[in-house]
Amino acid sequence: MNGAECLLRTLLANQVKVCLMNPGTSEMQFVAALDRVPEMRGVLGLFEGVCSGAADGYARISGKPAATLLHLGPGLGNALANLHNARKARSPVVNLVGEHSTGHRVHDAPLTADIEAFARPVSGWVRTLESSAAMGEAASAAVAASWGPPGRVATLIVPADFSWSEAGDPGCPAARPSRCLPAGERVREIARLLCSGQPVGLLLGGGALQLRGLRAAQRLSAATGVRVFADRHAARMTRGVGIPAVERIPYFPEAAQALLAGFERLVLVETRPPVSFFGYPGVRSSLTPVGCAFYVLASEEQDGAAALEWLAQELGAPAAVAADPPRPALPRGEPLTAAAVGRTAGALLPEGAIVSDESVSSNAEIWPHLAGAAPHEFLPVAGGAIGQGLPVALGAALACPGCKVVALEADGSAMYTPQSLWTMAREQLDVTTVILANRRYRILDIEMRRTGAGTMGPRAGQMIDLTHPEPDWIKLAEGFGVPAARATTADEFTRAFEAAMREPGPHLIEAVLG
Amino acid sequence: MNGAECLLRTLLANQVKVCLMNPGTSEMQFVAALDRVPEMRGVLGLFEGVCSGAADGYARISGKPAATLLHLGPGLGNALANLHNARKARSPVVNLVGEHSTGHRVHDAPLTADIEAFARPVSGWVRTLESSAAMGEAASAAVAASWGPPGRVATLIVPADFSWSEAGDPGCPAARPSRCLPAGERVREIARLLCSGQPVGLLLGGGALQLRGLRAAQRLSAATGVRVFADRHAARMTRGVGIPAVERIPYFPEAAQALLAGFERLVLVETRPPVSFFGYPGVRSSLTPVGCAFYVLASEEQDGAAALEWLAQELGAPAAVAADPPRPALPRGEPLTAAAVGRTAGALLPEGAIVSDESVSSNAEIWPHLAGAAPHEFLPVAGGAIGQGLPVALGAALACPGCKVVALEADGSAMYTPQSLWTMAREQLDVTTVILANRRYRILDIEMRRTGAGTMGPRAGQMIDLTHPEPDWIKLAEGFGVPAARATTADEFTRAFEAAMREPGPHLIEAVLG
Repeated sequence: MNGAECLLRTLLANQVKVCLMNPGTSEMQFVAALDRVPEMRGVLGLFEGVCSGAADGYARISGKPAATLLHLGPGLGNALANLHNARKARSPVVNLVGEHSTGHRVHDAPLTADIEAFARPVSGWVRTLESSAAMGEAASAAVAASWGPPGRVATLIVPADFSWSEAGDPGCPAARPSRCLPAGERVREIARLLCSGQPVGLLLGGGALQLRGLRAAQRLSAATGVRVFADRHAARMTRGVGIPAVERIPYFPEAAQALLAGFERLVLVETRPPVSFFGYPGVRSSLTPVGCAFYVLASEEQDGAAALEWLAQELGAPAAVAADPPRPALPRGEPLTAAAVGRTAGALLPEGAIVSDESVSSNAEIWPHLAGAAPHEFLPVAGGAIGQGLPVALGAALACPGCKVVALEADGSAMYTPQSLWTMAREQLDVTTVILANRRYRILDIEMRRTGAGTMGPRAGQMIDLTHPEPDWIKLAEGFGVPAARATTADEFTRAFEAAMREPGPHLIEAVLG
Repeated sequence: MNGAECLLRTLLANQVKVCLMNPGTSEMQFVAALDRVPEMRGVLGLFEGVCSGAADGYARISGKPAATLLHLGPGLGNALANLHNARKARSPVVNLVGEHSTGHRVHDAPLTADIEAFARPVSGWVRTLESSAAMGEAASAAVAASWGPPGRVATLIVPADFSWSEAGDPGCPAARPSRCLPAGERVREIARLLCSGQPVGLLLGGGALQLRGLRAAQRLSAATGVRVFADRHAARMTRGVGIPAVERIPYFPEAAQALLAGFERLVLVETRPPVSFFGYPGVRSSLTPVGCAFYVLASEEQDGAAALEWLAQELGAPAAVAADPPRPALPRGEPLTAAAVGRTAGALLPEGAIVSDESVSSNAEIWPHLAGAAPHEFLPVAGGAIGQGLPVALGAALACPGCKVVALEADGSAMYTPQSLWTMAREQLDVTTVILANRRYRILDIEMRRTGAGTMGPRAGQMIDLTHPEPDWIKLAEGFGVPAARATTADEFTRAFEAAMREPGPHLIEAVLG
């Protein structure tokens, strides 16, 4: 079989079953091979950032890598922002990039670029294939590299002639490495710390923010009084009624520092010492008190949930139950605000829903109301590169057929990868996109003041304004093939959201915020 | 004044008057400074690839750099594909990228990335600013670096604290370097070659494809019989009635090799030995005969037009006139084909129009009919990264108020940077976008066969198909604020195109090809 078929079969042998692609001439062999390897699901994106963001979303929900297939250096370039997010989310991604054939590469043709240089800043592993005979081994190595732990972007660059040449048998499946536990001495040290009577914080990230880790943390909190916090930018967090609640670190450093004041000791689980998203004049970047001591219960490579369970067992902490917050009441007869969107979503999200959040300045108003929603998975901004929300929703829907996916999307952010809507329509994915339309890069109004840039003059204001013209999200969605509705009151929004929750398939609701 | 104001004032002192921006928190000071430096025109793009592609188009038409303003590593990532094109077009671009403040950068916050690593593959010059006091000098150095010659992308990375701190006076303007002439011995050697009676080809690129160079080449051709060819991927080519015609190198290597067969000697003017766009099994990448000798009349750094004039003078070649092709007849009562689009455009383009071409598989049918159009500037694909056509048209319109700009855009390619339409609407730019809607990545049907990938199976076909769903370009354009019309016959297209040529401002015509 040729190299392209060998690669697809090697991916399948490694349980990589979805390939998000935007192919060109140098990837034609992969496209052709889809008919010989029908178990591989090829999903077309009209823009590469859709593919890379979807691979991130797929990994966050399935825990497994999807493959991307990108066209040369510029195709990879278009994928980089969402690969940055995947890197920060520690999502495993098998990132395949076609390259000119080896004979052609030396000629500096128009599309020739330094693909490895593009790939390195976002990849934990980069390799340019050396021969067609190495295809199977290299593809398995790429999958293995993507597993980590922690998960990472593994970029395999494939010269076209190695795709069209004979490549022999597929590679052997790579063994999935298991995550280690911390040393017993470390667990006992932290157990003693929690019993010391000093105020201690417990900061969870990574896999520790799913049910098992949250339950163990709840036992610890009930038994010792330790305060449990969540890394705001962890890839995934389970939340809702019946799920132990944790306190999320606020976005702005002053609020975060106020929350963490008094915690001179912080236990870290699959995360690092918390820092501010941006730096500001005269504000510390570190969110913990000066001189705070950090205790790593589980590093990003280790199994945080199992470590928390061990710690709970060490302390003899019994199972704990906390009072659930009430399910929010639907807003009625109100103007449409981000809070109203949050209440409606909190009231109507079905159990097992997935929320992809890129609501930016609206998030603070929405977030509290989802605490009382049915249990759901919350996928926040991980790397901060805008244009993540829609592709991550797309990938989550691919990973979990039968799950209702809701993308909470700021209107500015939605403009970076709106082509995601087309793939949602083509694949008939069960994604409801809510556009939080305040017609502005609202967060920048706040950041303008915070960075000391002074008052917003009229010319500055134009650079933050999304009216003149006002994008029409109904037309944009329909132009991409997704049915859409506009809501200007809370009741209209509730009706549209209710309908979208009832009817599978892609929907878009433009929530015009008052 | 603070660093941001110092930078803008230094750019202005260097005649850089337009800044294409998609700012975030780390660039707020630049946004605020727009009100203190009103001579700087800030133009907002909703996606960074719009900004970088527009800077390329601006440079191709004005010959001067525009500035971009991008948000951290991921913002730069989104701009890379069109910066790749700018690099290949040798367009001067002052590429400004905000960075976390120096105190914050060390904390590995979510948006932290290796910005220099992102920048290097597309930049001829990269510098991370070392202090606010260095702002003026660094900004002038960036402009100077962008000039080249040849023009290049100069990336200046600006930590946020250097924007908000005191920076002193603006930098001194950089002197614009002039392009050199070749050595006299070289000119005389090539003059002897042209008189030798051997078949010689003359391949023009860069600035040699504008009026002065074309006229000199025409004199040489008339006097010596030298065949004059055009680099297909040069940034800009003047064309139409009254402009000396040259033969463009075909896209596919077999046709190009057939055209150049027999030319064992090729004189190069601001270009390099021609190579195929892609490599194919069993096909040579070089387009010239094996053993072809190359004679560099002017390198990419030198002044090709002046060198051609010198050569013509050396040979005593008199002014020459060639018969102009007729203006094409408007198609009537015909189905809408790419050729019909070409005839209508050829018949109706006003003098001085600018054509941004990303028509891909439709180009071969359109191209011949523009030969008889009124004199115009043709901006082809330079680096091959898809998503160039609309932003380049946008930038060209910014560079040349009063010029009619026409973007000939394949429907697949238009999907990479459709956000360009919004900026065209906001700035009310005189750009008519023609979407050549064949609902397919048509070029890949051809490339699939050419790369030996075999017949197109149904699953492969899905990856090249743009129906299911069919994008609705009328709704997309209107969603971005651009009035739009759909044409399904040649007559409908002509009516819509005529109206767009008559009425200034942005228009989109979806040409549904039969």
